[in-house]
Amino acid sequence: VTARVDVALVHYPVYNKEGAVVASAITNLDLHDIARAAKTFGVDTFHVVTPVTDQQQLFTEILDHWLHGAGAAYNEKRKEALTLVRLCDSIATLRATVRQKWGEVCVLATTAGERNDPIPYGAVRQRIAAGQPLLILFGTGWGLAEEAAAAADGFLPPIRGKGDYNHLSVRAAVAIILDRLLGEREGTGR
Amino acid sequence: VTARVDVALVHYPVYNKEGAVVASAITNLDLHDIARAAKTFGVDTFHVVTPVTDQQQLFTEILDHWLHGAGAAYNEKRKEALTLVRLCDSIATLRATVRQKWGEVCVLATTAGERNDPIPYGAVRQRIAAGQPLLILFGTGWGLAEEAAAAADGFLPPIRGKGDYNHLSVRAAVAIILDRLLGEREGTGR
Repeated sequence: VTARVDVALVHYPVYNKEGAVVASAITNLDLHDIARAAKTFGVDTFHVVTPVTDQQQLFTEILDHWLHGAGAAYNEKRKEALTLVRLCDSIATLRATVRQKWGEVCVLATTAGERNDPIPYGAVRQRIAAGQPLLILFGTGWGLAEEAAAAADGFLPPIRGKGDYNHLSVRAAVAIILDRLLGEREGTGR
Repeated sequence: VTARVDVALVHYPVYNKEGAVVASAITNLDLHDIARAAKTFGVDTFHVVTPVTDQQQLFTEILDHWLHGAGAAYNEKRKEALTLVRLCDSIATLRATVRQKWGEVCVLATTAGERNDPIPYGAVRQRIAAGQPLLILFGTGWGLAEEAAAAADGFLPPIRGKGDYNHLSVRAAVAIILDRLLGEREGTGR
């Protein structure tokens, strides 16, 4: 059971700690955690975006280990989740790929900061339930660079807790946002 | 702004892949991700439970690096989150510690499997809002052993997505559950 929802973990262009635009490194754990969340919530494809050739090579090695190598035999559930993961060299390619699959698609960026007119989670949840295709962009490092965010059609609201600390890991942010958009709701049976 | 909610990451007793009761290893990343989620959602203390001496030593080294060593200067936001983390040698000690702080406390276990009569998230959310103290147990490895689960007063429901795959990482499960219990709700202003 999958929804017409794709997730992308963007490694370029993102900010580093000093606010410079960089390509961040792929991590084994991001791939696993986000793939498992994507599989749990019925995401169609989890795209990993990087233009850096040796990072693409690292991606291929990690996937190969868990899909076909020693990891596949060690943990079948991880293998199952990682079948959702695809490599992509840029946000432009990503957008074209998803359009080819679903036609016109709404692209939403995520941010830890406040933006004008974010689209409420409840509204996005309804769009998904109505079958509207959706691509959600998540930034690694210190978040999506402005040029990546500007390519989106809109923003999801930042995740707020009790105070003004909002420095969730990208893994935690993906999990929470997928739950808000696709998780089972108590008392509703869906 | 903190709630009367504590979270515990249990490394013993938990199941391994083969269903044996073991002590799992502490990981740097669990501490960081869960501390950041705990800080975001206003958790009072994040307890790390292990009876294994060299694991306790590892815990102390990790915390020391990020609170007082090179890590503290590198990333102040991580330091801020890790100030919530405390080491504990057993679930029994944990329970006594939390009782000393808040008096009678409700202990809820988390599970990926179905249990009889779990307490709905909405009901637990209301109890928290009413000021009732709560301790939530999360298992590492393949989940809390029965003897750990049996020490709890009740269970939270498993996190469900679209299908029958529910193999979230413990990091993702903590993030989602804290959001369900403590996260800001759209249109309610809290």
